Amino acid sequence: MYKLYDFLPSGNCYKVRLLLTQLQIPFTRIEINILNQETRTPDFLAKNPNGRVPVLEISSNQYLAESNAILFYLSQNTNYFPSNTFEKAQVMQWLFFEQYSHEPNLATSRYWISILRKAAEYQEALQQKQVLGYAALNVMENHLKKQDFLVGNIYTIADIALYAYTHVAEEGGFDLTQFTAIQAWFKRVENQPKYLKINDI
Amino acid sequence: MYKLYDFLPSGNCYKVRLLLTQLQIPFTRIEINILNQETRTPDFLAKNPNGRVPVLEISSNQYLAESNAILFYLSQNTNYFPSNTFEKAQVMQWLFFEQYSHEPNLATSRYWISILRKAAEYQEALQQKQVLGYAALNVMENHLKKQDFLVGNIYTIADIALYAYTHVAEEGGFDLTQFTAIQAWFKRVENQPKYLKINDI
Repeated sequence: MYKLYDFLPSGNCYKVRLLLTQLQIPFTRIEINILNQETRTPDFLAKNPNGRVPVLEISSNQYLAESNAILFYLSQNTNYFPSNTFEKAQVMQWLFFEQYSHEPNLATSRYWISILRKAAEYQEALQQKQVLGYAALNVMENHLKKQDFLVGNIYTIADIALYAYTHVAEEGGFDLTQFTAIQAWFKRVENQPKYLKINDI
Repeated sequence: MYKLYDFLPSGNCYKVRLLLTQLQIPFTRIEINILNQETRTPDFLAKNPNGRVPVLEISSNQYLAESNAILFYLSQNTNYFPSNTFEKAQVMQWLFFEQYSHEPNLATSRYWISILRKAAEYQEALQQKQVLGYAALNVMENHLKKQDFLVGNIYTIADIALYAYTHVAEEGGFDLTQFTAIQAWFKRVENQPKYLKINDI
């Protein structure tokens, strides 16, 4: 059975819990509290030398890190990943957009404000992340005005990857009121079979 | 024929030029000078709403952004992408590592120091990027002590993606002297058939 090294508040970990649940794949959760440096122990670094969760333990000597690489792995030959080569690449485009232009702004703001509760300390950096985060949200909003899901108009791991931190963006100080297409997309994601909330296990 | 919207000094663009060259796929280069805001014009934003190079024009209404998504697209069913599902996912793991833990530190430092030539202005931010950049280099070094290439011991798009900004890390103020496994890997990459230097077109 898969083991998931997981931190419940993390959107990156949530992506994997959501897909495993939707695929009805049983797994064992091992909670790793990143606030206690539990990703920096020799034992954890042997699993992921980059010291981050999530990590999927496939077998006793096979570990996979990077949330979006895990989504890719689990979704192969399922309905959550397209079969068309260009659509596959469009999914990857959104996954890299998420890790480069979206997550470092929305997720990091949420981490500082709602998990560490150090908004005042990070005030200056948060201002820059607001600008870049809203730019990423605008890219999504304009795209979702034109289609129901991010790629090929079916629910894929691209939607899972982007939903994870977008739907809790307000915890990072982002106001989603004006993003009506994103809000309508939230409802479509939440209506998918076997949908799981971020704090559920 | 493919059109590549390209900026010659960009390592992200170089990745795509290198793979296209190694695959012997002809393409037209369109130079986009990011220093003149040429990625922010309405015409360019219609191709990539996220306003970044590289962009691969596959046909007149098919555009693909994100360097590593383009590598994925071009490498399908070639020797540059593995056929084994776990090795595919390991390639993806390195591509996401590159965009999240490596490029924002090594490439951004190089951009500030050697392209914008504003090292003094960014001095404080550069110090933080040194710490995170060396951490990423250590992850690579320890891995390359154990194997010749990043995944499955053959040259793949994972090597292309990580080579791009690592081999010019000194332009971002990183000293590679102690990273002997990385330096030996540089030579193996540079000995691949149809290797292309970063400033060559």
